[in-house]
Amino acid sequence: MVEVPESHPRYESLKTRELLVEGVEKGITSKAGLIAHGRGEMFDYLIGEETIEQAKKAERKAVADMLDAENPVISVNGNVAALVPAAIVSLAERLDAKLEVNLFHRTDERIEKIEKELKENGAKKVYGKKADAKIPGLDHDRGLCDKEGIFSADVVLVPLEDGDRTKALADMGKRTITIDLNPLSRSAKTADITIVDNIVRAVPNMCDCEPFYDDFDDAENLSSILDFMCERLGSLSKDVKK
Amino acid sequence: MVEVPESHPRYESLKTRELLVEGVEKGITSKAGLIAHGRGEMFDYLIGEETIEQAKKAERKAVADMLDAENPVISVNGNVAALVPAAIVSLAERLDAKLEVNLFHRTDERIEKIEKELKENGAKKVYGKKADAKIPGLDHDRGLCDKEGIFSADVVLVPLEDGDRTKALADMGKRTITIDLNPLSRSAKTADITIVDNIVRAVPNMCDCEPFYDDFDDAENLSSILDFMCERLGSLSKDVKK
Repeated sequence: MVEVPESHPRYESLKTRELLVEGVEKGITSKAGLIAHGRGEMFDYLIGEETIEQAKKAERKAVADMLDAENPVISVNGNVAALVPAAIVSLAERLDAKLEVNLFHRTDERIEKIEKELKENGAKKVYGKKADAKIPGLDHDRGLCDKEGIFSADVVLVPLEDGDRTKALADMGKRTITIDLNPLSRSAKTADITIVDNIVRAVPNMCDCEPFYDDFDDAENLSSILDFMCERLGSLSKDVKK
Repeated sequence: MVEVPESHPRYESLKTRELLVEGVEKGITSKAGLIAHGRGEMFDYLIGEETIEQAKKAERKAVADMLDAENPVISVNGNVAALVPAAIVSLAERLDAKLEVNLFHRTDERIEKIEKELKENGAKKVYGKKADAKIPGLDHDRGLCDKEGIFSADVVLVPLEDGDRTKALADMGKRTITIDLNPLSRSAKTADITIVDNIVRAVPNMCDCEPFYDDFDDAENLSSILDFMCERLGSLSKDVKK
C-alpha cells in the first residue's frame, strides 16, 4: 500500500482509494468495485465530501427502522469489507442485525476472505456461504443468499448495491435501505431509505447517531439532495474557462 | 473476465467496466485508471449516457482539425487501449494520424503490451517506445515522447489525458483535442476542443462523422454542456421516485 501523507489536501479521499486497492490485493474487493468507487467519488465531490443534513436524517431513520425490525440483515460486499470492516461489525452489534456477504461477482474464495476479514474485526457469525436460498428474478449466482439471512429478513441494509438486486429484494416485500452516493442510481430510486453519503462517513455515523422515529419521505429527501448537487454544479461551472 | 448478462439493464456500462478490468489483467490498464473511469461514468450519467449535440459538434470539429493538420498524432493510454483498440486504429487511418503510446504510469512493459494490442488491431506503426524527446515542464517519465510523434505534432488528440500533460502540450504551441467526460477537469479547461462524451461512443463516431469546418467556440460549448448537466440533474430531481 502506498503511504499517503496526512498533510495532503485530499488525504481522506486518497486514503479511501488506497484501502480499496489494498482490498483488491487481498482478494476482497473486485476490480469492478474500484470503478464503482470512482463514480461515487465524483458524486461525493458534488456534495462537498461531507455528510449533508439530508444524509444525516436518512442515517437516523435507517437506524430506527433497523432497530424496529424483526430480522434485520446487513449485506456486505467487497467494497464495504475493504472500506469499513470494523464499523460495519459495530453497526451490526448496535442494531442486533445479521451480517451476510453478498457479492455481485461471486466466488467462494472471495466470500471466505470477506467472512475472515469481518471475523478479524469482531464479527461472531457471518452469513452468506451457505447460499441455500435464492432471490427470485435474478440470475443464478446473483440471486444466491442464506435462508436464515437475507432471504428471511424483513429489513435489509444493502450498501453500495446493484440496482437489480435492490429491486429484487424490494419485490420480495422487504424494506430496503441503501447507502449510495448516486441519488440517480436504480438502487437509490428503489430503496425505501436512501443514504446519499460516503460509506466511510455513513457507517460510523450510524453507529452512534440518535434514531429518528418520525415520518420520513425518501423521495422528498432525494429530491432535496439533487437540488443541492445542482446548485453546487452550477456554482462550480461559473468559473469554467477562458 | 466475468460475463455480464445481456439482460442486465446496465449491460453497456457494465461491459465497458469489464473491458477495463480485462485491461488490468492483461497489464495494459493501471488500477488508478479504473478509478478514473468511474469518475467519468458519473458524468456520463449526467448526460444520459448518450452523445449529446454539443459532443457531436466537438467530434466533427476535431475530425476537421485533424484532417487539416500537418502531423496529427493520437495519444493512446491504458484506458484507451482497453476500451477502443480497434476503433482508435480505424480513426488513425481515417485521419492519416500517427498513434503514440503515452502513459501516466509509464513502464516499458506496459508500452510494449499496448503497442502489441494496437498492432493486433491493425496498426502498422506505433510510436512511443523510442522516447527520444521530452515535453518541457513535466517530470522526466511523464514528459517522455517520440520526436517524430507527439514532440513534432501540430495537432494532438489526447483522450482521457491528465491535465498537466494537456497543459504542457498546449504550452508547446500545439493544438490540443481531448475526450473527457468531466467538463470541469483541467484537461477540459485547457484543450482547444473538448469532447465531453464516453470514449466508447466518441471514437466510433469520429470514424464516420462529417467534418465540421465552421467556427467553433469551445468555451461556449463547454458552458452549454454544464448547463445541460445542471438542467438534467434538476429535471431528474423532479421525477425522482414513487
